[in-house]
Amino acid sequence: MDFEQLRYQVAAFAQDRDWDQFHSVRNLILALVGEVGELAEIVQWTSDDKIDELLKSGGRERLAQELADVLIYLVRVADKSQVDLAKAVSDKLAENDAKYPKDKARGNAKKYTELRDEAP
Amino acid sequence: MDFEQLRYQVAAFAQDRDWDQFHSVRNLILALVGEVGELAEIVQWTSDDKIDELLKSGGRERLAQELADVLIYLVRVADKSQVDLAKAVSDKLAENDAKYPKDKARGNAKKYTELRDEAP
Amino acid sequence: MDFEQLRYQVAAFAQDRDWDQFHSVRNLILALVGEVGELAEIVQWTSDDKIDELLKSGGRERLAQELADVLIYLVRVADKSQVDLAKAVSDKLAENDAKYPKDKARGNAKKYTELRDEAP
Amino acid sequence: MDFEQLRYQVAAFAQDRDWDQFHSVRNLILALVGEVGELAEIVQWTSDDKIDELLKSGGRERLAQELADVLIYLVRVADKSQVDLAKAVSDKLAENDAKYPKDKARGNAKKYTELRDEAP
Repeated sequence: MDFEQLRYQVAAFAQDRDWDQFHSVRNLILALVGEVGELAEIVQWTSDDKIDELLKSGGRERLAQELADVLIYLVRVADKSQVDLAKAVSDKLAENDAKYPKDKARGNAKKYTELRDEAP
Repeated sequence: MDFEQLRYQVAAFAQDRDWDQFHSVRNLILALVGEVGELAEIVQWTSDDKIDELLKSGGRERLAQELADVLIYLVRVADKSQVDLAKAVSDKLAENDAKYPKDKARGNAKKYTELRDEAP
Repeated sequence: MDFEQLRYQVAAFAQDRDWDQFHSVRNLILALVGEVGELAEIVQWTSDDKIDELLKSGGRERLAQELADVLIYLVRVADKSQVDLAKAVSDKLAENDAKYPKDKARGNAKKYTELRDEAP
Repeated sequence: MDFEQLRYQVAAFAQDRDWDQFHSVRNLILALVGEVGELAEIVQWTSDDKIDELLKSGGRERLAQELADVLIYLVRVADKSQVDLAKAVSDKLAENDAKYPKDKARGNAKKYTELRDEAP
């Protein structure tokens, strides 16, 4: 599946149900926040070192469900605000590549604004 | 671009910078929450009826940037938790189709649990 | 009720259930994100001009529930990271007062960084 | 400081700047989401076992700032939706006390819906 196919399917789903009236940009962002909340809930009581255990005991399936929900709203926000999501992500990857040069960014999690003045 | 290409590019980006050590599932979900916060900030003071104006005056480009950031972390959470995102979203669309029958869901925003007992 | 009383009650609640083991700072922030998601869900399909109607038809009670949940986790994050929440909010109010001078900030929603160069 | 004092101060701050016009319930919830995003960013790359180190090296002050921001918007959402936050949190604590009996909830993080059928 590519982004255009997904955009189309999600749009058709809404149109078939006459849901465009509810899909304002702000409504969709709030709905996305709701799904991100459900994503967070899955891992909220599972400390970092117990995540594998969670994934193996049903956590992976629950994450899959919530990641899909977030993605669907994300695609829909992009569509309703006339953002070309494939282009946006492609531009962003190029931008990140320039912001975080491999030699300077290797092995550290600093923000790019802090990387500038550092020796590689 | 399709999901597998994006997954690959985002993974290569992290690997080139030795960032896999930071990309635990929980870290990535928290990072995703941070980007969703930036998405919300764009529209926080713009009431529903002023969104078009915002989009035309730079808002679309800012939304594109933040939607891309959210998508990148979303793809990365899926990858690090071994979730097949394309399959997850495809399954979810099928599930939503069953949960929200066109005739019952048309023109109302009720949750599927409230739709069951309603006449179409 | 003041902040110290609430902090104490929430801490006692956790201690009585031996829940301190789950209440790491990151766990609590993720739990707070979950509750914020539920807060967003309440207003997600209700456009700005229909909020009063929502509040009158049960929305107020649902908001009260979720606001309380967010507040409880907020107080708990502060406690577990040894932040004096009453002092933090008092400092912040003073800081905001300096950042947003009444004459410059009146009637506009610009961020303080954009206010600096403006005529009052 | 108690909740009524904070509510009053935050309301006066907005009124002095003629900001009531921006403080609709949905705007404020979106603004709260933005601040929660900043809260998450502070701990996003710091694994559970490194949090103390983060707190000691400036993290506590940054958390204090963001917790205050979240609290201010929380109090403001409550005010603008006519929710008595002190009563809401007091009701919620009583409700949680009933939902999570000490003997059943001790030492486990299960949701109350899963606790019902368990032996203490």
